Amino acid sequence: MDILDQRVLPYKIAYLKATSAAQTAKAIKDMVVRGAPLIGCTAAYGYAVELNNRNPKSWGDTKKLLAQSAKVLKNSRPTAVALFYAIDDIHYCAMNFIDKHKNEKFNRELLNKLRRLINNCAHRIYKEDVSANNALASLGAKLLKRKSNVLTVCNAGSLATAGIGTALGIIYKAHKQGKINRVYVCETRPYLQGSRLTMFELMQNKVPCFLITDNMSAHIIKTCKIDAIIVGADAIASNGDTANKIGTYMLAILAKYHKIPFYVAAPVPTFNFNFKTGADIPIEERSPDEVCFIKNIRIAPKGAKARHPAFDVTPAKLITAIITEKGIITSVNRKNISKLL
Amino acid sequence: MDILDQRVLPYKIAYLKATSAAQTAKAIKDMVVRGAPLIGCTAAYGYAVELNNRNPKSWGDTKKLLAQSAKVLKNSRPTAVALFYAIDDIHYCAMNFIDKHKNEKFNRELLNKLRRLINNCAHRIYKEDVSANNALASLGAKLLKRKSNVLTVCNAGSLATAGIGTALGIIYKAHKQGKINRVYVCETRPYLQGSRLTMFELMQNKVPCFLITDNMSAHIIKTCKIDAIIVGADAIASNGDTANKIGTYMLAILAKYHKIPFYVAAPVPTFNFNFKTGADIPIEERSPDEVCFIKNIRIAPKGAKARHPAFDVTPAKLITAIITEKGIITSVNRKNISKLL
Repeated sequence: MDILDQRVLPYKIAYLKATSAAQTAKAIKDMVVRGAPLIGCTAAYGYAVELNNRNPKSWGDTKKLLAQSAKVLKNSRPTAVALFYAIDDIHYCAMNFIDKHKNEKFNRELLNKLRRLINNCAHRIYKEDVSANNALASLGAKLLKRKSNVLTVCNAGSLATAGIGTALGIIYKAHKQGKINRVYVCETRPYLQGSRLTMFELMQNKVPCFLITDNMSAHIIKTCKIDAIIVGADAIASNGDTANKIGTYMLAILAKYHKIPFYVAAPVPTFNFNFKTGADIPIEERSPDEVCFIKNIRIAPKGAKARHPAFDVTPAKLITAIITEKGIITSVNRKNISKLL
Repeated sequence: MDILDQRVLPYKIAYLKATSAAQTAKAIKDMVVRGAPLIGCTAAYGYAVELNNRNPKSWGDTKKLLAQSAKVLKNSRPTAVALFYAIDDIHYCAMNFIDKHKNEKFNRELLNKLRRLINNCAHRIYKEDVSANNALASLGAKLLKRKSNVLTVCNAGSLATAGIGTALGIIYKAHKQGKINRVYVCETRPYLQGSRLTMFELMQNKVPCFLITDNMSAHIIKTCKIDAIIVGADAIASNGDTANKIGTYMLAILAKYHKIPFYVAAPVPTFNFNFKTGADIPIEERSPDEVCFIKNIRIAPKGAKARHPAFDVTPAKLITAIITEKGIITSVNRKNISKLL
């Protein structure tokens, strides 16, 4: 499988080949591919690719191999729920098939049948994300009024999903309806997903957009008449607390202070009901080097200590609405979430 | 005069020679030197250097030369009040001298006397800043409790002033008194004064410090028990509204939301009573290239539009106290400010 290397976008279009679950997991860990829904889809294909390229000799071998694939892929990154959702989904399909055929003699034909099943399952996960994007984008666009100025962070677009994106999906739909005046894009340090990926996508789609550094957000909200902030999500707890790219929590506080709506756009596989609140969501701490260097250039003194939480948690009470493919949750709370999903 | 080139710190110690007011103004504009109080001191020396290196032939020539120096220096950057304060101060001294001697015959001896006066005036402005730093640092340190975790932005330290600094001056004094557990430093995009300058200073002074990206601030305040935010200032209006490095307003909102004090540390030459409110403070808009490139490396697509307001305005109501060398203004409002100053 060829994975578009998002680390070098928009300067270079390069692909990384992954022919195993471990290589796919490494690509996810190293942020060759990122964005919760896209991580989920990529992991599912990584799971499929592993079996396509291996020749187990028994049901026992196959089960061991697939369990190992599921494990290595789930260990790649800790926060994105879509990753666990996709792997649990595809692994369940595979185990179900094996369970149904466990009394038959293991043979090449059955193995190929399992491969096809798994490939189809990965493709279904992919297609579900495309549909979810379209559905939630249409719903979300309804929330915006004509000529809106919108602010977003990170990249929740077609580079973060299988389809048109979540937060950016809404912006694309709204733009087609004449509802977008300008999009302000937080550059999103340290990985610069905003400046590198979101600006790239918006410019390609001819959506009027302005790049800002993350610390300009409050000033821009105050002085540029921002009408709404729209972000994606990596994990949503059962009470609506939402983990997303570091900086999201800050924007939610700024939205509240300036009395503008703060929208989270996320497909259903972003929710994990095992998380009672945001406190249960594991927040990935990445290498401090990613803060102290930008594109291999040191920007801090040698020996400087740095923190690098990759995500933060926005409490439900700061979220105006969560926009899913099944509908919009206003009054974000446990009851309304479980009612809709 | 040799000016330490702060643009290449902490990687390189380099000096830029300025032998005229115009060269000094260019160094200020190009951010070779930055930080409101230090800009003021440097401008005063630039004004002095110009006359030291020129030989006007009459009082008329001298006045023209000095008026031109004052103009070019004042035009270097629009927001830092200390710049205008210093130039008005030194230019007034010079004009006063000329006025007193205007009926005497212009000669070399009188010119040298004027040069000495101007040099002494520049040195007085410098020494006043050193004293102000010490005084306000001692006052500010009293506001902190033992083992505080403090967050700051940009660089309001010895690289921004003639002395130990304003916000960092307080931190240094407090650190000596055992009051500092950790300092979290916002990297301060786009110029990275936090990662390059403040981390450098704090590490040199052995103050425990951690670098964070600007968008981590809310998450760090919530999860790392930040006790106070301390920042410097470039301009303070008569009602207490404060212009400081872009990102400051955001931090003030975050402080309010998390119910922690937000302190502004600034010497008296930061106040300008001609500004009734923050709306009157001119906010410098710098080149978008400074956002789209980091150290000459492009981080946004070619053709990307960007905003680059270099400062923002924090309304007085979000400021817990303004710490000056003359005392601390709690309840920041017009009445209390004019009472103290």
